[in-house]
Amino acid sequence: MVIVMRAGASLKAISEVLKKIEELGLKPHVSKGRERTIIGVIGRLTLEPEYFENLPEVEKVVRILSPFKLASREIKQDDSVFRLNGKVEIGGNHFVIMAGPCAVESREQILETAAALKEMGVKIIRGGAYKPRTSPYTFQGLKEKGLEYLKEVKEKTGLAIVTEVLSVEDVDKVSQVADILQVGARNMQNYPLLEALGKIDRPVLLKRGMMSTLEELLMSAEYILSNGNPRVILCERGIRTFEKYTRNTFDVSAIPMLKKLSHLPVIADPSHGTGVRDLVIPVSKAALAAGANGLIVEVHPDPSSALSDGFQSLDFKSFGRMLEDLKAIAGACGREL
Amino acid sequence: MVIVMRAGASLKAISEVLKKIEELGLKPHVSKGRERTIIGVIGRLTLEPEYFENLPEVEKVVRILSPFKLASREIKQDDSVFRLNGKVEIGGNHFVIMAGPCAVESREQILETAAALKEMGVKIIRGGAYKPRTSPYTFQGLKEKGLEYLKEVKEKTGLAIVTEVLSVEDVDKVSQVADILQVGARNMQNYPLLEALGKIDRPVLLKRGMMSTLEELLMSAEYILSNGNPRVILCERGIRTFEKYTRNTFDVSAIPMLKKLSHLPVIADPSHGTGVRDLVIPVSKAALAAGANGLIVEVHPDPSSALSDGFQSLDFKSFGRMLEDLKAIAGACGREL
Amino acid sequence: MVIVMRAGASLKAISEVLKKIEELGLKPHVSKGRERTIIGVIGRLTLEPEYFENLPEVEKVVRILSPFKLASREIKQDDSVFRLNGKVEIGGNHFVIMAGPCAVESREQILETAAALKEMGVKIIRGGAYKPRTSPYTFQGLKEKGLEYLKEVKEKTGLAIVTEVLSVEDVDKVSQVADILQVGARNMQNYPLLEALGKIDRPVLLKRGMMSTLEELLMSAEYILSNGNPRVILCERGIRTFEKYTRNTFDVSAIPMLKKLSHLPVIADPSHGTGVRDLVIPVSKAALAAGANGLIVEVHPDPSSALSDGFQSLDFKSFGRMLEDLKAIAGACGREL
Amino acid sequence: MVIVMRAGASLKAISEVLKKIEELGLKPHVSKGRERTIIGVIGRLTLEPEYFENLPEVEKVVRILSPFKLASREIKQDDSVFRLNGKVEIGGNHFVIMAGPCAVESREQILETAAALKEMGVKIIRGGAYKPRTSPYTFQGLKEKGLEYLKEVKEKTGLAIVTEVLSVEDVDKVSQVADILQVGARNMQNYPLLEALGKIDRPVLLKRGMMSTLEELLMSAEYILSNGNPRVILCERGIRTFEKYTRNTFDVSAIPMLKKLSHLPVIADPSHGTGVRDLVIPVSKAALAAGANGLIVEVHPDPSSALSDGFQSLDFKSFGRMLEDLKAIAGACGREL
Repeated sequence: MVIVMRAGASLKAISEVLKKIEELGLKPHVSKGRERTIIGVIGRLTLEPEYFENLPEVEKVVRILSPFKLASREIKQDDSVFRLNGKVEIGGNHFVIMAGPCAVESREQILETAAALKEMGVKIIRGGAYKPRTSPYTFQGLKEKGLEYLKEVKEKTGLAIVTEVLSVEDVDKVSQVADILQVGARNMQNYPLLEALGKIDRPVLLKRGMMSTLEELLMSAEYILSNGNPRVILCERGIRTFEKYTRNTFDVSAIPMLKKLSHLPVIADPSHGTGVRDLVIPVSKAALAAGANGLIVEVHPDPSSALSDGFQSLDFKSFGRMLEDLKAIAGACGREL
Repeated sequence: MVIVMRAGASLKAISEVLKKIEELGLKPHVSKGRERTIIGVIGRLTLEPEYFENLPEVEKVVRILSPFKLASREIKQDDSVFRLNGKVEIGGNHFVIMAGPCAVESREQILETAAALKEMGVKIIRGGAYKPRTSPYTFQGLKEKGLEYLKEVKEKTGLAIVTEVLSVEDVDKVSQVADILQVGARNMQNYPLLEALGKIDRPVLLKRGMMSTLEELLMSAEYILSNGNPRVILCERGIRTFEKYTRNTFDVSAIPMLKKLSHLPVIADPSHGTGVRDLVIPVSKAALAAGANGLIVEVHPDPSSALSDGFQSLDFKSFGRMLEDLKAIAGACGREL
Repeated sequence: MVIVMRAGASLKAISEVLKKIEELGLKPHVSKGRERTIIGVIGRLTLEPEYFENLPEVEKVVRILSPFKLASREIKQDDSVFRLNGKVEIGGNHFVIMAGPCAVESREQILETAAALKEMGVKIIRGGAYKPRTSPYTFQGLKEKGLEYLKEVKEKTGLAIVTEVLSVEDVDKVSQVADILQVGARNMQNYPLLEALGKIDRPVLLKRGMMSTLEELLMSAEYILSNGNPRVILCERGIRTFEKYTRNTFDVSAIPMLKKLSHLPVIADPSHGTGVRDLVIPVSKAALAAGANGLIVEVHPDPSSALSDGFQSLDFKSFGRMLEDLKAIAGACGREL
Repeated sequence: MVIVMRAGASLKAISEVLKKIEELGLKPHVSKGRERTIIGVIGRLTLEPEYFENLPEVEKVVRILSPFKLASREIKQDDSVFRLNGKVEIGGNHFVIMAGPCAVESREQILETAAALKEMGVKIIRGGAYKPRTSPYTFQGLKEKGLEYLKEVKEKTGLAIVTEVLSVEDVDKVSQVADILQVGARNMQNYPLLEALGKIDRPVLLKRGMMSTLEELLMSAEYILSNGNPRVILCERGIRTFEKYTRNTFDVSAIPMLKKLSHLPVIADPSHGTGVRDLVIPVSKAALAAGANGLIVEVHPDPSSALSDGFQSLDFKSFGRMLEDLKAIAGACGREL
């Protein structure tokens, strides 16, 4: 951390800063420039660096070390790789596909989707039982019933399940069905939920908030990791910008940047990431080429009748074609799919 | 709702849209332009309008009616005004001040603040017992202990209490102390929490998410209102933009715009809204001049030692001076303080 | 400037940085922390600090001094105040009003507006002769003809003129009529234009780009100042965000922040700043309360027939009422209008 | 265009709107809903649709047709493809590479770069002679001298030249050397410059402004096209967001979206698009996989000594490796490079 004093800061103000630094068990290192005095602080701080901005005549505080530890590449230099249920590799050279409808809408819909996906070689199915919706007046998911259908899918097809959990109370219930628990974009900073997920023995798929920085995403991962759960999958799903032709702006550079900063697996959600069906395939290819570890993508037996997100869902046929294209690109990139 | 078909849309696609509209019990109204066919839809839809974007050859869907009802000015033309504990008016001509530290840090700190605020005529004290923090490694609030101290403040000074609630499990506990329950920016779209707050008999202060549109804020208010709690106070607290000199960009025009769209009271949080102590006073004045119903502002006995947000907190002296300035402006605007 | 080396940076990389620093005539100051070496650089750099990010094993460079000099409050501690044509004070205690139509549409329109404004006590009229328009197919301004009408206004009413200049070629022509030359938001970083305006003897009203940080605005002011023209008026006119109910988000905290960073006068444009007529009056009041030195506001004899920006223009009656309200608030704030 | 009247709009207000529509030679089409009257407008409008928002009791105006014509896919369904100097294909199946330093810094630097690029099979070299810089105190380019060196490069190597033009006055001078004239992000809405470039017989590379929507980019292309120059190349170069680890957020979905909306070639600038050297290669691959027609990328003989943008420039070796990787992916995508 570096503390920058105002131009012409008084000796009194400077010594007050030095005193605080020492009180906190840290070591100061003073540089007097022509216009500014700056004070380096050596050691790990348990308070937020902004703490020093409280003090008189401090102009600003500049953090040097990143605030995440367990999630960082510095702590763990090799990629985190694990096998889901001892089978599907996540985080390594394999490009994992998670696919399925936005919401579980009926037993038929999810079973039909599962059968089709299985035939195309997909190993993990997605589908929401609990749906966070902007409006209280729209379809909120089948809840427990949805979980039951997912359980049936799992038993019948052997597909692994990824599904969203919305609150601490539901963690147990969802864990009994889900192989991966998903935290949605709106809950990325729901800290009680993150803490609860840090205490379970299931991988967590953590979506980036739609207006969250990568640092905030990694800090949210840190909540889960520091509570004891090492299996966190990061997911870029588009951020909010001023652009209007797309529902979100897919931040493709987040993929290599997260992989540079962290050892955790990084996947992409091209469906929410763009919100436009015609863009899902090109953005999926881009995510693979940029180095993602996989995709989570919305596929529906009949997008035109989907109760949510039909406009950004692929049908089986176009999803199948996309898989072929992805295989070719994976090959060219030295990856497997 | 208006459905815009692609240029040269086929008759088949158009009739499919018309069929769906009628299936949903709505009435279509077709306009054929030179380049596009557009279809007006008359009646209230229970699905999201985007549903129609699932259909083939539909270019886009344009919503005409706003999606919030109970929060809207159209449903209730007069301002919602209520008296907190039968005393302090919120939502009317009175400009209400809620002040206090970011977090309850100790019994002494909160009692000292309460005494000082009471003497300056403030009727509502703020102070966080549960603190949502970006980092798992920083001060997370005194939790139950903090609530106890707030209870003592209430008994000793008669000040009303506003404090944040982070999760459904804590709603009961917090309700026993708080006169107003606050939903923080990060929880604005925590729907299970909003539903729980819709079922209690306490006013709710709902902060705008740092990444949320005004429409989304009003939809979150709708969750509380539609669950039965009519006393929602909206709060503008700054949004995230590209500007770097401030921590957030305070959206002053949100105040008159929310008052135009909704009958609910609107207050401003100039502390989080800017994140810079020197800006708190000018932005507070601006909020009053723009028509806000009040302020929630961070005041600390010794900002330089605050465990959180000291850099944006006022001390008692500058807070007192600000109150004087606000009184003068309130007078000039025909308001009371 | 502080240079942060990567964790475990090699001695070779560190010495390369030190060598560069000395080659540039600057003085390094090394701090070795537990995890990082950081190098303070003392002296003014003629290159951009990012230059050092070119070097191997440099993680990042943190600027300490602001890059603007002539515009900064540190160079000139008192507010810059000047009198336009020896009369209207700009930059001091007086709250200056510049008003008029978006575009000069006809001789009648601008003369009628001028007469009305003069009667209400306004001293400066705005009106665009050259209009930058997003579409090549819409009204582009009356150009030379517009300037002629403005000249006539000036001769007949004595009002001072503020009007936009779009390119270097037009600077001379516009200077012959305008008392203040305006640089629009889209041209804030048109450096050849800024350089040309630095060489004339007329005040320049510099609008913040809709996508520009305050630092960039001050750097653009620096182009004008460093070319010899000290009379620059900064203007906050709203920035682009994700919010959809307003055309732009008026950044009210930019006003006190600019006044903290710079000695230059700061005015507000509530018309473009919001893009919604109903918000113009509350935002104008907010700007005054936040400490602005004045307003530039769109007023039109008949907004419903305006060729541009009618939706955000006031008619004479509501403008007159606003002036009364502003006078009351100015009084309460110890300001004059 | 659809005009939405306020709830309970008066008959008088509605007829006023109808009258205006007819005065403008257009045809209205009225739909009365339960809560709102909406009026479709049939025919092409020469005013901006917002014009109708001037009128009393109009709530909002919704555009149905896109405002760009010549740039649109509807006017021209096939991709625009042309051969630069009768040789390099731009806009078709070929993935074009434009590479070179941010700025021409010396005769040696640009000749050395040209030789290296030529050997690697590159056909187009980039290099700025006129540099738009945020600060008036930093390197502004070699200007005429830079153009001379570029001319020498062209004569000696036969490489085609792409270089930026900053103002109308320089268009002639730059045209004598450049095979493609570049409009930088900051000038995307410099309309006099766009008009001037519409009148020359050289392709124009138009960069998206860092906070411009795709619609605005296409409207700026429209300025060039409607002035007579059909050879416009669109370039995605990153937009400004809240994310701090990257200098800009590269909007990869802009590539397929622009290709959906328009027939013009679309290339990517991964160097400015990310501002971080380590991200240039993954983002280049992503752009190719997403369907771009090519790249413009910063390559420098010695990035660590570059006078500008060294931190985002590749050296020859890593650029060479990237070309190999791109060839493999191009093959997998059925493209040529």
